Amino acid sequence: MNKYKISFQPGNVEVEAYAGENLIEVAARASLHINASCGGQGLCGRCRVELKSGKVQSDSGPGVFLSPAEYARGLRLACRCLVSGDATFNIPPDSRADASLYASALAEAEVSVAQLAPMASDLELEMTPPSASDNLADYDRLLEKLAAAHQMKKPAMELEALRQLPEALRNGDFWLWVTVFEEAGGSGQRLLGVRSIKAPRILYALAVDIGTTTVWARLVNLDSGDSGSSHGDLNGQISFGEDVISRIVFAGKGDGAQKLKDRVVENINHLIDLIEKEDPGCREQIALVVVAGNTTMSHLFTGVNPRSIRLAPYVPAAADWPVLRAAELGLRLPGSTPLLIYPSVSSYVGGDIVAGVLASEMYKNPELTLFIDVGTNGEIVVGNQDWMTCAACSAGPAFEGGGVKFGMRAAPGAIDQFYFDPATGTHRFTVIGKTRPLGICGSGLINIVAELFLAGVLDPQGKLVKEAAPDLIRTDEDGQEYLISPASANGLDRDIVLTEIDVDNLIRAKGAMYSGYQTLLESVGLGMGDLDKVIIGGGFGKSLNLKNAITIGLLPELPPDKFTYIGNSSLTGATLACLSGELWQKADEIRRNMTNFELSETPGYMDYYMASQFLPHTQGSLFPETLAELARQRKKREEQADGDGG
Amino acid sequence: MNKYKISFQPGNVEVEAYAGENLIEVAARASLHINASCGGQGLCGRCRVELKSGKVQSDSGPGVFLSPAEYARGLRLACRCLVSGDATFNIPPDSRADASLYASALAEAEVSVAQLAPMASDLELEMTPPSASDNLADYDRLLEKLAAAHQMKKPAMELEALRQLPEALRNGDFWLWVTVFEEAGGSGQRLLGVRSIKAPRILYALAVDIGTTTVWARLVNLDSGDSGSSHGDLNGQISFGEDVISRIVFAGKGDGAQKLKDRVVENINHLIDLIEKEDPGCREQIALVVVAGNTTMSHLFTGVNPRSIRLAPYVPAAADWPVLRAAELGLRLPGSTPLLIYPSVSSYVGGDIVAGVLASEMYKNPELTLFIDVGTNGEIVVGNQDWMTCAACSAGPAFEGGGVKFGMRAAPGAIDQFYFDPATGTHRFTVIGKTRPLGICGSGLINIVAELFLAGVLDPQGKLVKEAAPDLIRTDEDGQEYLISPASANGLDRDIVLTEIDVDNLIRAKGAMYSGYQTLLESVGLGMGDLDKVIIGGGFGKSLNLKNAITIGLLPELPPDKFTYIGNSSLTGATLACLSGELWQKADEIRRNMTNFELSETPGYMDYYMASQFLPHTQGSLFPETLAELARQRKKREEQADGDGG
Repeated sequence: MNKYKISFQPGNVEVEAYAGENLIEVAARASLHINASCGGQGLCGRCRVELKSGKVQSDSGPGVFLSPAEYARGLRLACRCLVSGDATFNIPPDSRADASLYASALAEAEVSVAQLAPMASDLELEMTPPSASDNLADYDRLLEKLAAAHQMKKPAMELEALRQLPEALRNGDFWLWVTVFEEAGGSGQRLLGVRSIKAPRILYALAVDIGTTTVWARLVNLDSGDSGSSHGDLNGQISFGEDVISRIVFAGKGDGAQKLKDRVVENINHLIDLIEKEDPGCREQIALVVVAGNTTMSHLFTGVNPRSIRLAPYVPAAADWPVLRAAELGLRLPGSTPLLIYPSVSSYVGGDIVAGVLASEMYKNPELTLFIDVGTNGEIVVGNQDWMTCAACSAGPAFEGGGVKFGMRAAPGAIDQFYFDPATGTHRFTVIGKTRPLGICGSGLINIVAELFLAGVLDPQGKLVKEAAPDLIRTDEDGQEYLISPASANGLDRDIVLTEIDVDNLIRAKGAMYSGYQTLLESVGLGMGDLDKVIIGGGFGKSLNLKNAITIGLLPELPPDKFTYIGNSSLTGATLACLSGELWQKADEIRRNMTNFELSETPGYMDYYMASQFLPHTQGSLFPETLAELARQRKKREEQADGDGG
Repeated sequence: MNKYKISFQPGNVEVEAYAGENLIEVAARASLHINASCGGQGLCGRCRVELKSGKVQSDSGPGVFLSPAEYARGLRLACRCLVSGDATFNIPPDSRADASLYASALAEAEVSVAQLAPMASDLELEMTPPSASDNLADYDRLLEKLAAAHQMKKPAMELEALRQLPEALRNGDFWLWVTVFEEAGGSGQRLLGVRSIKAPRILYALAVDIGTTTVWARLVNLDSGDSGSSHGDLNGQISFGEDVISRIVFAGKGDGAQKLKDRVVENINHLIDLIEKEDPGCREQIALVVVAGNTTMSHLFTGVNPRSIRLAPYVPAAADWPVLRAAELGLRLPGSTPLLIYPSVSSYVGGDIVAGVLASEMYKNPELTLFIDVGTNGEIVVGNQDWMTCAACSAGPAFEGGGVKFGMRAAPGAIDQFYFDPATGTHRFTVIGKTRPLGICGSGLINIVAELFLAGVLDPQGKLVKEAAPDLIRTDEDGQEYLISPASANGLDRDIVLTEIDVDNLIRAKGAMYSGYQTLLESVGLGMGDLDKVIIGGGFGKSLNLKNAITIGLLPELPPDKFTYIGNSSLTGATLACLSGELWQKADEIRRNMTNFELSETPGYMDYYMASQFLPHTQGSLFPETLAELARQRKKREEQADGDGG
């Protein structure tokens, strides 16, 4: 088969490719992640690349995503391009999935450990050296000692550990450390490794959060309970689809499942490499891995078919998971290291949420708590120490920049903070990474809509009010749009605008979440006013402007001191499970005790949803402060207008 | 590094080699096994090869093993040759370790199974398909069913099995087979695999015997209890030493342990290939492997350091073994297949003997039984249903053709049966494979010595009696020797002879065994006359001439009907453990209940040994029939001589 040389600009990255290979995959091999929100199906038009020289086979000409002029200029959809010769491409900034922010932005979660009692731990054993009259074999001697001193009856033993045994015993005069693993609530013990008493004794665990967008890993010292270094990276599967559904679809095609698995395994191995640079030698001492991820991520990581997740009756292959081995999944860790996967509640309320609830501690407090993880698949948990209900809601991709004309992930170039000045009819904004703007991230979208709404530029139905900003609002074939950043000032070749369709999408998304809270509360006869606490977990919460999120009706209107952001609660939950078998068992209890609601099948949800399609909400009594603020601002504008006019 | 082409004759086998590679290893890579009794240390002179063309670097010139003339003719010791250029070698027949006989000679052991109850078995589970109101995940559904129907509490589950689950469930309408493994006496169950109820249901096990010389594997049908095909092969480690001690020494050098491990793993994989040819598809259905081997073989196969076996106090790394995985050891079998290794009694009484005792059924009969496995390391068990004692004795390599000037293994070309005719003063013999003779195998040596002894050609001290065969006995620098086959009639270039040193070695070897029996019997206050049964296991027994073995004093003099040969008892024992968890547990009981004697440290053994250094024995009362036969033959010769003279 012919092999060609494909170059990518900027950066001049070269990679070899076979004829017929998909361009997104070729780029991914060079660690260049091209946006492909729709999973490379040619539906989203986000993967535009520019053919600078050479040739490529493209199955789509100009059309909905590419004007004839753009096509003539060399623009192509990468997902529709197959290698057919040497070629050089330019990847425009807005087609690029940039990982740099994700590697530093997430907050370090606070770990509070009641009691350090990890499932992998060291036993110290002092044995009698053999003699002519006592020539029991090493392994048998060890078993005898474990039985006598620790009442263990022939625990399973890893081959690795057995191979270490003769030397470890003799190096320390038959005095050694034995690393024992026992899943809390599981069946039986396993000896992972042995070390001479003279060997350095530090035992680590690795906590991993596999998010649909980012993957995080943290080193955990099992002796001190301290967290070591942690690193994050963009989930490499992103080239094959931004949301879980596109990935499940991709997994069902050819070797798609293998590709997705390989990507996330590479991700984690890369993070382990980074961690090892900071703690040299730690890799060989990692005696436990705990992974938290949503149900789909857990399936894709383990190579278990996720197909049934998206087919009625939405039954995953596994909610609970057996103890696996890190090495058999492809992680470059000792062959004996066990790997635990957080149990899910259902197909769409995954282990990441169970981990988050554990981290939030809501399961042990009397306060009525709402726990939310905002994202394409938003998850909601309501309850307290006595009961918990949960639901997933398909908010759609608006919070992550999808379905929005100039939407993008919260990466450099994303418009984030936004302020409208009614006095001048102009606005200011901040851009992540302080570059020229390339688009609008989810939190930026919320900020823009909230500001424009309070300023009267958007009405409660989400329609632009032309006379409120006549210079910035214009009409396009699709309807009205609001000019955010002209081509002359941004990093693109066209104006960045907010369309009414974008606003509609956001209203649908926030309404899906809000009506979810209402449905869960109603199921136990309660309402928003009964909430004592709102805990926000997940990556999205960090950049969320609380006031603006309430203004658009994404969050319930409650006093600010009732809200807490707990960072990457999935990683924190994984960390806690590393540190304590009791907490791991607690996680299993949590997921078993949570009542899962399928919102689409829950009576009342659709009514709530319809009522939520309004800024902030049809039912004004739920947002009295917001409405008061709206009134105040309107009054101020009117006074100003009067003043100007008078 | 330079790469050269090495050719071997006969057969014209070509193989690539790097400069500096050892010639024995190069040959082994081409599956040509060159004799190297001493483990390639240049001590035995058995690995003579002939350099036909090209060049090689040899670190020894002519000397004790090669005359100057031989050296000039191109003869070299392969173990002392390092590749230094292209070269062609001839491997003479007596330097070749031929595997052909081993692949067909061993008797199929009879397997008698009391009760078919294997440790790997299938459960049939009929489950309710999921629905909107019952959307438990597949794995959780399975766990729930196992708990309800079989009282199993979260058994361990192999990743392999989990991956098969979604499809297996849906292919059979949630009705499936689950393969469950549980080590009898072990800790906990493990789910190995799942199959739709519509899938063909046959479950197999693989019984493996790893002998120092040969490796055998047998397919076992766990549903019917029937044995399938079995195959044997020369243990590929033989190029690195013939006996366990040379291999332990080799394992301690560089990557020696890895090489030894790889060889035997290749052996078993090759045998599985042969078995699969006869039962296509069986490989994927093998749900259990049981391996029996001596203590050293078990260590070398698992890659566990065997070093301590040969150092006082002779403590192996493992006598008992944890459950391992066939795939982690390198066997090409399903990733989930568990592998059990027969437990040993001590460093020199291994799992093969425990398996043999199980196969012999002596542990459940009241008769006082002597079980022996004759070989370089002879093993002896004495006892019955109430008690058992055992010992290993270093008989030396005479029984396997080692330490004997023209000794060889029982392969084609080996002189086997031997008959001396006093009337003519001549002898006849048979050769394995009906070829020209190349040497004398262990059983042949026993036959020769027994015949010559009864004919008065050897005296009770093992010295040749010149006048009894004046034409065949001659004197060499090393002492007297008896001409067995002249160069003109054999396949070598020199006479095949029996030397007095050879006879000495055999007397030492048989004496070591016999005094072992005596010591064990004496330890419980019994003697030879109390034996009800003698059971002979192992490969050597098959070709053993019972009468001759008694004549030289290797076996006790008892009526023939007290002797039984049970073939490859180690393989039989492994087969039994495949078929029954109860028998596997019995094996563990057997090894725990056996009292092991270190003969060299047992008072009385040396006295017995000294007394045994005689044909048949110093204590004539132990061999009354043999002495009577000796007297009869002497009388016959005297009468004949008188007749001739008269």
